[in-house]
Amino acid sequence: MTQSPDVKAPDFADLDEAVAILRERGMRLSTSRRLVLDALFRAGTPVTAEGVATELGLDLASVYRNLETFERQGLVRHVHFGHGPGLYMLSGHDDREYLFCEQCGAVRALEPAQLEPVREQIRKLSGYEARFAHFAIVGRCPDCQRA
Amino acid sequence: MTQSPDVKAPDFADLDEAVAILRERGMRLSTSRRLVLDALFRAGTPVTAEGVATELGLDLASVYRNLETFERQGLVRHVHFGHGPGLYMLSGHDDREYLFCEQCGAVRALEPAQLEPVREQIRKLSGYEARFAHFAIVGRCPDCQRA
Repeated sequence: MTQSPDVKAPDFADLDEAVAILRERGMRLSTSRRLVLDALFRAGTPVTAEGVATELGLDLASVYRNLETFERQGLVRHVHFGHGPGLYMLSGHDDREYLFCEQCGAVRALEPAQLEPVREQIRKLSGYEARFAHFAIVGRCPDCQRA
Repeated sequence: MTQSPDVKAPDFADLDEAVAILRERGMRLSTSRRLVLDALFRAGTPVTAEGVATELGLDLASVYRNLETFERQGLVRHVHFGHGPGLYMLSGHDDREYLFCEQCGAVRALEPAQLEPVREQIRKLSGYEARFAHFAIVGRCPDCQRA
């Protein structure tokens, strides 16, 4: 969970290629580990560890351990929307950044290039290099402002 | 913890005025509740519930309950820096927003007006009205970028 978000994602197109990368690195691939990775490929959208554990009938702590292992290998990353638990996804396939409405829970995904003007203002103001791929921008969506 | 950040902060200058507000609202003010509020006045800087509990020798769960009660009354608010636990402070006395370095943990506090150009870019891009008082902007500080 405290994994650096800057681990470089290896190239992999599908489950077999991801498994091959882990094997090349000498990692043991248990059935549950393979199932967790497969669940991320099938989901196609960020998912919670709880969701994966429930779907697969696996122990939550073991799903977290597997996800953390994949993160250390750069295969998986997670994003936080406000107070919520991390949502996990495959790295490299999706480097989008997020906006989260803390009133209704709406999520908006944006390409990193779209957020460059925002980053530039933050840079000018503070020198910080901001990223919203790991921790979303939190605020209120247009609908909640109108309501 | 899931308290809306938009509860209006009442006016209070010191512990006695804060206590008076709670009493006017018919709230019981136990010794531990008063101690927790006093700790926030003495701290002068955002503090974790764990820090308050350790300092006062109180049960962590009860400190959290007290902090949440104060938040519902608009006396207290909290901010999250990345994965870390919430940091609590008195409302109204400090409406600053935050930048957090996820590499070294550095924190930079800014006045809301200073962040207006950032908010404006986010508004133009997405229509979202962003706030960084409850969830800090996360990125890398200038020192960590140079290192």
